[in-house]
Amino acid sequence: MSFNTFLGVLAGFGLFFGSVMLSTDNAFVFIDSASIVLVLGGTLAATFISYEARSVMQALNAIISTLRLHRVGQGGLNAEVGRVIRWAYLVQKEGMLALDAEAKKTSGWDGGFLRFGVELILTGYGGEEVRRILANTIETSFERNMVRVAILRSMAATAPAFGMIGTLVGLVIMLDEMGGDPSALGPGLAVALITTLYGILLARLIFAPAASKLQQREEIARHRGYLIAEGLSMLADKASPRHIQDRMNSHLDPTVRYDIDRQLKRPPEKGAAGTRPATRAA
Amino acid sequence: MSFNTFLGVLAGFGLFFGSVMLSTDNAFVFIDSASIVLVLGGTLAATFISYEARSVMQALNAIISTLRLHRVGQGGLNAEVGRVIRWAYLVQKEGMLALDAEAKKTSGWDGGFLRFGVELILTGYGGEEVRRILANTIETSFERNMVRVAILRSMAATAPAFGMIGTLVGLVIMLDEMGGDPSALGPGLAVALITTLYGILLARLIFAPAASKLQQREEIARHRGYLIAEGLSMLADKASPRHIQDRMNSHLDPTVRYDIDRQLKRPPEKGAAGTRPATRAA
Amino acid sequence: MSFNTFLGVLAGFGLFFGSVMLSTDNAFVFIDSASIVLVLGGTLAATFISYEARSVMQALNAIISTLRLHRVGQGGLNAEVGRVIRWAYLVQKEGMLALDAEAKKTSGWDGGFLRFGVELILTGYGGEEVRRILANTIETSFERNMVRVAILRSMAATAPAFGMIGTLVGLVIMLDEMGGDPSALGPGLAVALITTLYGILLARLIFAPAASKLQQREEIARHRGYLIAEGLSMLADKASPRHIQDRMNSHLDPTVRYDIDRQLKRPPEKGAAGTRPATRAA
Amino acid sequence: MSFNTFLGVLAGFGLFFGSVMLSTDNAFVFIDSASIVLVLGGTLAATFISYEARSVMQALNAIISTLRLHRVGQGGLNAEVGRVIRWAYLVQKEGMLALDAEAKKTSGWDGGFLRFGVELILTGYGGEEVRRILANTIETSFERNMVRVAILRSMAATAPAFGMIGTLVGLVIMLDEMGGDPSALGPGLAVALITTLYGILLARLIFAPAASKLQQREEIARHRGYLIAEGLSMLADKASPRHIQDRMNSHLDPTVRYDIDRQLKRPPEKGAAGTRPATRAA
Amino acid sequence: MSFNTFLGVLAGFGLFFGSVMLSTDNAFVFIDSASIVLVLGGTLAATFISYEARSVMQALNAIISTLRLHRVGQGGLNAEVGRVIRWAYLVQKEGMLALDAEAKKTSGWDGGFLRFGVELILTGYGGEEVRRILANTIETSFERNMVRVAILRSMAATAPAFGMIGTLVGLVIMLDEMGGDPSALGPGLAVALITTLYGILLARLIFAPAASKLQQREEIARHRGYLIAEGLSMLADKASPRHIQDRMNSHLDPTVRYDIDRQLKRPPEKGAAGTRPATRAA
Repeated sequence: MSFNTFLGVLAGFGLFFGSVMLSTDNAFVFIDSASIVLVLGGTLAATFISYEARSVMQALNAIISTLRLHRVGQGGLNAEVGRVIRWAYLVQKEGMLALDAEAKKTSGWDGGFLRFGVELILTGYGGEEVRRILANTIETSFERNMVRVAILRSMAATAPAFGMIGTLVGLVIMLDEMGGDPSALGPGLAVALITTLYGILLARLIFAPAASKLQQREEIARHRGYLIAEGLSMLADKASPRHIQDRMNSHLDPTVRYDIDRQLKRPPEKGAAGTRPATRAA
Repeated sequence: MSFNTFLGVLAGFGLFFGSVMLSTDNAFVFIDSASIVLVLGGTLAATFISYEARSVMQALNAIISTLRLHRVGQGGLNAEVGRVIRWAYLVQKEGMLALDAEAKKTSGWDGGFLRFGVELILTGYGGEEVRRILANTIETSFERNMVRVAILRSMAATAPAFGMIGTLVGLVIMLDEMGGDPSALGPGLAVALITTLYGILLARLIFAPAASKLQQREEIARHRGYLIAEGLSMLADKASPRHIQDRMNSHLDPTVRYDIDRQLKRPPEKGAAGTRPATRAA
Repeated sequence: MSFNTFLGVLAGFGLFFGSVMLSTDNAFVFIDSASIVLVLGGTLAATFISYEARSVMQALNAIISTLRLHRVGQGGLNAEVGRVIRWAYLVQKEGMLALDAEAKKTSGWDGGFLRFGVELILTGYGGEEVRRILANTIETSFERNMVRVAILRSMAATAPAFGMIGTLVGLVIMLDEMGGDPSALGPGLAVALITTLYGILLARLIFAPAASKLQQREEIARHRGYLIAEGLSMLADKASPRHIQDRMNSHLDPTVRYDIDRQLKRPPEKGAAGTRPATRAA
Repeated sequence: MSFNTFLGVLAGFGLFFGSVMLSTDNAFVFIDSASIVLVLGGTLAATFISYEARSVMQALNAIISTLRLHRVGQGGLNAEVGRVIRWAYLVQKEGMLALDAEAKKTSGWDGGFLRFGVELILTGYGGEEVRRILANTIETSFERNMVRVAILRSMAATAPAFGMIGTLVGLVIMLDEMGGDPSALGPGLAVALITTLYGILLARLIFAPAASKLQQREEIARHRGYLIAEGLSMLADKASPRHIQDRMNSHLDPTVRYDIDRQLKRPPEKGAAGTRPATRAA
Repeated sequence: MSFNTFLGVLAGFGLFFGSVMLSTDNAFVFIDSASIVLVLGGTLAATFISYEARSVMQALNAIISTLRLHRVGQGGLNAEVGRVIRWAYLVQKEGMLALDAEAKKTSGWDGGFLRFGVELILTGYGGEEVRRILANTIETSFERNMVRVAILRSMAATAPAFGMIGTLVGLVIMLDEMGGDPSALGPGLAVALITTLYGILLARLIFAPAASKLQQREEIARHRGYLIAEGLSMLADKASPRHIQDRMNSHLDPTVRYDIDRQLKRPPEKGAAGTRPATRAA
């Protein structure tokens, strides 16, 4: 459960209802089920016409999923670098075949991606081919998921439009029936404006935030994917662990960079493969 | 018939008319043929000035076509991979010429694209040249079709503008003839606002959704095109079926990836061409 | 004369004036020369400050040119492919020098481009150099012409702004002079709103459509340019007519692709240069 | 002095004041120094918070500089081609060192760029390195100058916002003090609307046009830079004058292309270096 | 302390409060704590739903950091070039190892970046690999920091929306309770408009400027990063100091270019390594 997101939703609606409660004794004027049906129903209808039903259902599920916790901080990325570097030492000692058993241990959302990458290495592709296939996997997967973001953004733009449609309907009816009596204008206008209010609230507290959060998560997943693809493609080329560390570290925030000497708790290798000159080890 | 799209259109207009019916006894105030002619006619006129007539007609046809069913799910993409892999085994066994008969059997909307690709292979071009020609075919075809999307988006922006023009015309006439009698303001304003309502409804329930759905379909078609181009260009280079599978799978959602061992229902080839090490077969 | 564009302009303004005539006996309230001068003059003034005078004059000319007929349908592109393929056979038979006479026969808007390309071939540049020089010609020419589109789009955004300026001026004067007499509000507001109406009409029926049509034409010209550049650069490399056909066809809509065997009305060459295997000729 | 720009500014403000004068006897209602201070001051304040002070000062200077004449027509570009071609003949005759004296004679805004390029050639870099260094010079200089355009665009968006802030302040005060007397509404609203008017006028007649003109000039300067970089990098490779002419011409409008045979007023060289076949000279 | 930014904030709010004070005796109508809570709280709530809490906190910190001084003028860039050139002479004299001691002396915000680059050189990577790793470091770091800019821009768009929500709430309550008494309309509307005013002020004087300033700083940091990466990658290739100077200078404004002969205060080397011909030294 993402406590912050939940708190945000609570605070947003709380502030709204709180300010309503404080300002009027007749807060029920803000609850109008017909208006909710028109705005929410119209938005959903327009969305189902605009996109394939399967994609819309995924986007609606994504709104709920943004309430779930999602922690791929920079620390997690450091651990990814560590895993690939451990595998690189393993390959140096026991050969490529040892990777197979390792990959099967991985789990979680990117276990499949890691296993796919290791399979490519074991099949015998060179580093460039592994990088190309994994990069394509990352990009097509990113594009597929960004459709949901596009749907949520489209809903965030559609909800206020249906709010305005509702207000126009209310205005036309009110003006048509007014018949020279301006005292009826007040309550009629109040009801007409409710749909606009619903439309903006839906857009600003639900659809737009869900789209932003989903997009941020997809971008983090893509970033993580490229980090792993960098490591695995170098593994396929049998690059030295130091080289893998330097290339992968360039993807990370300087404060969480991986350091073989400190994190693997082993003395720096001496004269190992000539990739790090003696001057550094001194 | 795309049931979802039809349902969406029905629900959208149903919600609108339902909420009108519930709110007033005089629903006929919302039907004004002169307003419809002004908004729809003005939008069409501006569109015919903006774009070549041939393209506008195609865009209008595309609105209707979005009601038709269009199912290129991920499962269909899996079948595309399977076909190219079957062809790769065929080429290994019987040579390139066997492809000609296969290609002629293809049908449907992308049959022409497949046949064009196979012709290129049979002409004797290398993989790079096949990829280049097919990629160019995909991109120019995508750009040609996106003109329709641009036209629909332009109509979605033009309709509310003509709605506003109608409202301004109504306002000017009403204000000019009002002559100090505020009781006439109500009904006059109601009529003036109808065109704005029509403009937003047209944009949000017809033009914008049609543009979104058309764009999504074109992007899926382009994605499918690149998937096939990847496979055919590797076929031209006589790549192994395993290699074709791995490259093409990187275009697919992990859940629908093609698996030669499972889907072709044959034991994994033994020591075949060295592309898959013995460790995998164990 | 582009009949469709002319009809569109006529229909757009006709619908506007028609709906005005039907709605009021006093249609002259919609004609206010001071408002026209303010909106149109202000838009032109802002445009002349924003862009070099020479470019603005070209953009204004372009508005009129969009009324002229412009027919570069897909059929025209098929003919372009045919011409380059005829030239390729000519080069095979009579050598490069025969091109010189052919190029001089070309005329029309792209005659200069074709002649420039042929001159490059005759100068002796390789295909890559010809492609590079022609691509640069196409891109710089496209950018130069897109300035006009940018100017027209800027005018489409400026006209409503000056409409609003006029309305604000009218409002301020009316409110300042109102002096507690609400009956003067009607006619004053009516006059004030006229400039907004003019601004939106100018933008939606003249500036925005002209910009869209001009952009579409420039994009077609660029597309045609790349098609010709593809053919000429292959000519410089003495590619076979079949190869030229396949590459150029990838730029075309499948329904209008060029077919040597059908369109040149000659039996398929036998065993010619090995570019097309015997199986195709059967 | 750019006569057109000056005329544009004059016409823009003239139309505005003229239409005010014609419409009211009390034109002084449109001059309100407090409103000017709020809108202009607020815009400047927001801009100084948004950007480094040095950049804002440059942007404000740029507004005045757009009034100055700036003539880099296509004719000027033709002269640039001519100069590089003369240098190419000079290098053929007298060697690279002759360039040094020539470069010192250049002056004007791009003299420094030319001299920098010639220094690179004399230092002995190859054509690819000269092109790379000059292209980087052009791009970083373009990006540096585009910051001013971004600032002016931001001011064009900020001015109407502060106009609206002023109007809201005026509205709140007026509504708060109205006290049931609707006759005070007119003049109060008139004063409140003045700031919105100022904001739109500032944006549309000063900030937005200055941004557009500055951007157009920067794009022309970049275009000219790439033209010169193309020529100088070919000079470093000791390309033939004909080849330089053909490559540089591809940057120009066909009507102002450079023609060695016509513009250098010399008979076409006979059999010179084999770059132009005898057939062309015939 | 950035004096200009502080002055800007002061001037912006000063102008606002000054114009309020001058216009009314009852300035307290503009201070409404419930409205502040609704607008600011709603904006924060929506932002915490939209982005990971850690990123939002960084964005809020960034608002305060924009008040701090940040001086990376063109002069600072000149010094960067000087440092790399001094290192290049050092490497020529004393070898690569001397760099290690130099790098440890660097401090400040980019000290870490410099040290990382020198470590890569000492590890023995070639220039292309150093450039690749450093470029990746710059880009991923830029993208990470731009998330804060995106959050601030999103807040600048959200604040006016919550201002409008507050105004709608106020309007609905006022209209609902009005009950045919138009004299209550004034004060009620005044209170309702306050939230819109707050929303626009927050967006225009705080969120949007902070986003712009942060983005400008990130772009300068990226520019500086590429300048240093250019120098270090050439150092790894043991390029001559002159060559390093020419390449790095192409990143700088012509007026602050580094000049070895003038700034290192040494006579131009004679016949040094052939990178600068004798003609230049003369």
